[in-house]
Amino acid sequence: MVETIEWTSQGVVMIDQTRLPLHEEYVTCRTYEEVARAIKDMIIRGAPAIGVAAAMGVALGVEQADARDLDARFAAICETLAKTRPTAVNLFWAIDRMKRLYASLRGLPVEEIRARLKAEAQLVREEDIAINRAIGRNGAPLVPDGKTVLTHCNAGALATAGYGTALGVIRAAREMGKQVDVFADETRPFLQGARLTVWELQQDGIPTTLITDNMAGHFMKSGRMGCVVVGADRIAANGDVANKVGTYTVAVLAKENGVPFFVAAPVSTLDLTLANGDLIPIEQRAASEVTQVFGQMVAPPGTAVENPAFDVTPARYVTGIITEKGVAQAPYEESLKKLIG
Amino acid sequence: MVETIEWTSQGVVMIDQTRLPLHEEYVTCRTYEEVARAIKDMIIRGAPAIGVAAAMGVALGVEQADARDLDARFAAICETLAKTRPTAVNLFWAIDRMKRLYASLRGLPVEEIRARLKAEAQLVREEDIAINRAIGRNGAPLVPDGKTVLTHCNAGALATAGYGTALGVIRAAREMGKQVDVFADETRPFLQGARLTVWELQQDGIPTTLITDNMAGHFMKSGRMGCVVVGADRIAANGDVANKVGTYTVAVLAKENGVPFFVAAPVSTLDLTLANGDLIPIEQRAASEVTQVFGQMVAPPGTAVENPAFDVTPARYVTGIITEKGVAQAPYEESLKKLIG
Repeated sequence: MVETIEWTSQGVVMIDQTRLPLHEEYVTCRTYEEVARAIKDMIIRGAPAIGVAAAMGVALGVEQADARDLDARFAAICETLAKTRPTAVNLFWAIDRMKRLYASLRGLPVEEIRARLKAEAQLVREEDIAINRAIGRNGAPLVPDGKTVLTHCNAGALATAGYGTALGVIRAAREMGKQVDVFADETRPFLQGARLTVWELQQDGIPTTLITDNMAGHFMKSGRMGCVVVGADRIAANGDVANKVGTYTVAVLAKENGVPFFVAAPVSTLDLTLANGDLIPIEQRAASEVTQVFGQMVAPPGTAVENPAFDVTPARYVTGIITEKGVAQAPYEESLKKLIG
Repeated sequence: MVETIEWTSQGVVMIDQTRLPLHEEYVTCRTYEEVARAIKDMIIRGAPAIGVAAAMGVALGVEQADARDLDARFAAICETLAKTRPTAVNLFWAIDRMKRLYASLRGLPVEEIRARLKAEAQLVREEDIAINRAIGRNGAPLVPDGKTVLTHCNAGALATAGYGTALGVIRAAREMGKQVDVFADETRPFLQGARLTVWELQQDGIPTTLITDNMAGHFMKSGRMGCVVVGADRIAANGDVANKVGTYTVAVLAKENGVPFFVAAPVSTLDLTLANGDLIPIEQRAASEVTQVFGQMVAPPGTAVENPAFDVTPARYVTGIITEKGVAQAPYEESLKKLIG
């Protein structure tokens, strides 16, 4: 399996997720600004992977920053990285983690500060893989055997440091011997399902069928779907889930057809400071993502577009939130708080 | 406004709907086989337009057929045209209409038979425009003023001989002074919404916003949608509606959010020989429509695909079926039968 993101002596190396699946290319970010640009341009995407990238961006920035003005440089580095994308809370979680560590290192020699931040960023990455394995273990028992799992977008190895959240649950279900195959929504406009989910499940030999987003209902109604598993970009205190646009639609279809709808995410995706999902900022992206596919115009010139990158699924549609610490179920106000402990 | 399909001395001329919106090109079908190929390849599409094309294909075929063997040639022409696409019942309705006329002309001179079939095909086209105007008149009062209408696929002038069914309702609502704008689902895989609906509404100056299919839920939940209006490819006796894949999803989202869901179609789309929608044949189209966009691969090689071109929306989701003879509402078994009279 390829690595989504790695710290190397050359810089932060990422597989270029805008070029997959036809081109397997790697981008080396040699400055924190390049890491920020890679997050913004979705060379790396997926809430947990964005968190890892942000932590590595902070470490890289501090490594190269003027030691005589480190506090101001550190603040600027964190601010630049925080401004890349608004919805996935893991970005802010990772930056806050680096900030707390930095604050605790005050007074130490600059070389030690740099080494500690670098080690922490690598730890964020390694922990993420372990967390995803735990999410998989917790979620696998919930996946109905002998049926199909529908997933939306890519909440796989490519959206994380490895193994994946939603796809981690599917991997774990198969590792425990369950006979499940996958239906992947193509996930317009960025086509994460067609380009990334199909590609990474092919690498693992997991049978996967690609459908356009608007076919999910047809197959949900057909009875072949055992459950839906998706990732999350931010989960509010009441269990409302922000995830890739289209997730709400899939959740409504699941409810209507009696199909369990699971969200798989690390606890770093929880934002208990927000009472509900209406408070989650939804990123609006460029119109050209909708009017063009790989640079090919698919709509007439002058087309007006809406392009929210995420939507909010109210908690009442969510059968369970699968985390590394266990599975939360309604009422989420209590169960999520209890998970965090 | 451009013409979707016309009878000319050169043959049957159609605007090429695979090339819109970037190229406004016309195809001249000089034989009935070319008409059949144009239907199959979706150079012309949309249930009513397919009906017109089939009628013209029959007339064109008979015009060129060996007069010494006309019955056998007529049967072969009808069979070729009937095999093009399975779901839209208007195709079979138009062919049956031409068959009945042909049977009634038995014994007449061949030149008169040819002239009568040609006149009938042109009548089918002209009637369709008048029917769509009547659908518009019947539907316009149902459209909430000052809100947005969501539509899926293209049930417009391009899907008919002119004016459109679903888009005809929107046009009529605006003609009666209602302030409505349109949200158009892009409608993967063939992108009829992005390519055709946006284009034809632009020509009319009707404000239209393009969204990807998976964004419909987000905007339905936002409260801005006054109603949904879509077309239909076949409607069973109980009111179940086969239409472009994704229609079922939109209907479920509409019900969940308390938004009226209307189907606009001529009575030639009714198939009262089928008790319910499960009996409607659903066309499966090529995998390449999903894995490619304008020839650009969007999924890895070897991707397994499902590509049903249509889905079935159960009657319980349908607020009303708007036809040229009036608006049918549940219970549809009775109301549809009464409409046909």
